[in-house]
Amino acid sequence: MNALVLLSGGLDSTVALGEAYKMHSGAVGAISFLYGQKHPTEINAAITVSDYYGIKHQVIELPAVFSGTGSVLIDDNELEMPQASYEELSDEFGVSPTYVPYRNGNFLSMATAVALVEGADEVWAGMHAEDAHNWAYPDCTPEFLGAMANAIYVGSYHQVRLITPHMWRTKADVVQAGLDIKAPFELTWSCYEGRNRACGTCPTCVGRIQAFARVGVKDPVKYEIEIDWESVAT
Amino acid sequence: MNALVLLSGGLDSTVALGEAYKMHSGAVGAISFLYGQKHPTEINAAITVSDYYGIKHQVIELPAVFSGTGSVLIDDNELEMPQASYEELSDEFGVSPTYVPYRNGNFLSMATAVALVEGADEVWAGMHAEDAHNWAYPDCTPEFLGAMANAIYVGSYHQVRLITPHMWRTKADVVQAGLDIKAPFELTWSCYEGRNRACGTCPTCVGRIQAFARVGVKDPVKYEIEIDWESVAT
Repeated sequence: MNALVLLSGGLDSTVALGEAYKMHSGAVGAISFLYGQKHPTEINAAITVSDYYGIKHQVIELPAVFSGTGSVLIDDNELEMPQASYEELSDEFGVSPTYVPYRNGNFLSMATAVALVEGADEVWAGMHAEDAHNWAYPDCTPEFLGAMANAIYVGSYHQVRLITPHMWRTKADVVQAGLDIKAPFELTWSCYEGRNRACGTCPTCVGRIQAFARVGVKDPVKYEIEIDWESVAT
Repeated sequence: MNALVLLSGGLDSTVALGEAYKMHSGAVGAISFLYGQKHPTEINAAITVSDYYGIKHQVIELPAVFSGTGSVLIDDNELEMPQASYEELSDEFGVSPTYVPYRNGNFLSMATAVALVEGADEVWAGMHAEDAHNWAYPDCTPEFLGAMANAIYVGSYHQVRLITPHMWRTKADVVQAGLDIKAPFELTWSCYEGRNRACGTCPTCVGRIQAFARVGVKDPVKYEIEIDWESVAT
């Protein structure tokens, strides 16, 4: 295994996986985390995507420490999911109500340990430029990822490098990159709700729909609401 | 809680805890990790030290991912503990046979999540200059700790700072710092073995004995072997 890819089962990490797979001629693995999230739908998507590529996939359960700051993503939290785009959210709140305290720091650190055990030289992660917009997710910013890249490279005895191909891409750029490598968008799950179809109204659904609309293609996943792709505000 | 201190139950982290306790007038907490280590003796020492200071102490069990690279510290590994000083080890091997893959990256990342939940502004950790000697522990070097300090500060939305008071101290300097604040050395446990008394011959016992000898005081912990404090090579 040359590279270990953080795979949530969403669109961004699936495109990152596809790019790593292509670059390393298939010699990649994927890793997903249970951290108290409300529903297993995204993990199931990660399994399906890993099966699609025929790669080794590990699911790691993290200690239950992430619930205490009131992220709406976490299991024992009753707060309602906001119905807005990320951009509206971050303009209003700064840090997103979906921010889980230092979650990505823990994902990347755990992935580095697993990469060392697997003998992989790279950890890949799919954060993109809109994740970092207005500091909605501080642990998705280039400043954070740059510091982590240094920490990982030094702390792994110069074995593991952090690769973040989407760091300067918009979500629409990520969709385009996925089209270029024929990423299996239909197998991915981005919605914060865990129902049969994507809700189409949570921040990540709104961002995903807008991204496809900007590229000018229809998202193959099913939504609960009717999407008029011609008139999506981009 | 103003500060959360990584506490292994050893000498270095206990002195760091004592310094944080003094600086913050007692408003500190401690955190220890189960990561597959061979014996619980150090965790028991961490509990005893936390009780001594009367502070909140949390023990977090990490996922079982650290065993795959053959560290002699890990439970399911049959390798023999080397009988040598760290200095001899790192001169001979470079990376130490006691290095656990990216362990400290995971400790610091998990501690940052807990600090955010606890509302603490600082994470303290007790790595010292001899830990970093010849890259024996890459995840104890100033280069690693500086990168992590940046990652933690940015990724925590500028709430949490990483404090590493021993970073430029020798082990003897740490002992002296502990004497200055009357740290409870007698409650700490540094030995890699988990017997009733410290072995006196594993790398960490050798380093600890030399450090006390350099300062010119006797270590109050009991050793299996007779220590002639007058003639310890310093």
